[in-house]
Amino acid sequence: MARLPGLGPRSARRAVLHLVRRRGQLLGPLAEAMAEVARTARECVSCGNIATDDLCPICADPKRATGLLCVVEDVGDLWAMERTGAFTGRYHVLGGTLSALDDVGPEDLGLPRLEARIGAEAVTEVILALNATVDGLTTAHYVADLLEGRVQVTSLAQGVPVGGELDYLDDGTIGAALKARRRL
Amino acid sequence: MARLPGLGPRSARRAVLHLVRRRGQLLGPLAEAMAEVARTARECVSCGNIATDDLCPICADPKRATGLLCVVEDVGDLWAMERTGAFTGRYHVLGGTLSALDDVGPEDLGLPRLEARIGAEAVTEVILALNATVDGLTTAHYVADLLEGRVQVTSLAQGVPVGGELDYLDDGTIGAALKARRRL
Ligand SMILES: [Zn+2]
Ligand SMILES: [Zn+2]
Repeated sequence: MARLPGLGPRSARRAVLHLVRRRGQLLGPLAEAMAEVARTARECVSCGNIATDDLCPICADPKRATGLLCVVEDVGDLWAMERTGAFTGRYHVLGGTLSALDDVGPEDLGLPRLEARIGAEAVTEVILALNATVDGLTTAHYVADLLEGRVQVTSLAQGVPVGGELDYLDDGTIGAALKARRRL
Repeated sequence: MARLPGLGPRSARRAVLHLVRRRGQLLGPLAEAMAEVARTARECVSCGNIATDDLCPICADPKRATGLLCVVEDVGDLWAMERTGAFTGRYHVLGGTLSALDDVGPEDLGLPRLEARIGAEAVTEVILALNATVDGLTTAHYVADLLEGRVQVTSLAQGVPVGGELDYLDDGTIGAALKARRRL
């Protein structure tokens, strides 16, 4: 349990204890659910999201065929976007970022598949929702160059986060927010 | 010492101990410097920055008469902007935000003085660099309405901070970054 991301050894011990104490109600059903996921979970053949069918519920939903395609690094980022409720299109999960060091190339990230989807799904805009890290930005520039002239490519705005106070932000963020300032 | 912002009781004790131990080298000169500041420090009559003359060094510098005026809540925010080295114009320090609850009105924030500066200093753009908090946003909208049609008013971009990972950002920030997405 301690190997789960986000659970320290102490929280893991408490979770195990809780499960063992209530093993009748919790442990049996949890084990069954995990076995079920292990048996049925796979990657959506279209976007890379977790699915129980060939297509994930998002790709299978005709209402989400809006022509907008949001590129994310991993399934956790897809969930983060979904939580906002602000995005109504479909996703493309890269499964990582380009990395010469770790020998991750364009094919590993399913970029040929992304290119194929643009025509097949009448995509009008590709939104790059990659992390604002060095690897994320490098990958964003690669994808933007790859798709240039074929489809409109946009990127999440960089700037001050909601609730952000200038005094607590790093210089790079303030500089980016100043550069990308907008008319009121 | 424990009353200084940012110093907890424990750090304050350690600071005091350090000062007392090295009182010869540190405490005397520090006390002198503090007395000097207490005697000479005042508010810049133009922008509200801390100054030792009527005008602070920024207002007194003719190279900073760029027609850009950056509105900040307090002197700490001015310093945060200065640290980036990305802003070359002048400032206007409000000294707070509008607040009906605390009875802070436009005059308390020096808004008539801000209006006067726009003509007097040939200001072409007012950049609102207020905190992305409820009070900051309310104040930003008030100032934007006040100056509408008289000068271009812009605001720091909201979005993903530098180094930000989607999974760790709140929904509001991701939503704002999506809405303000820009072409690559
Ligand atoms: Zn899918
Ligand atoms: Zn000044």
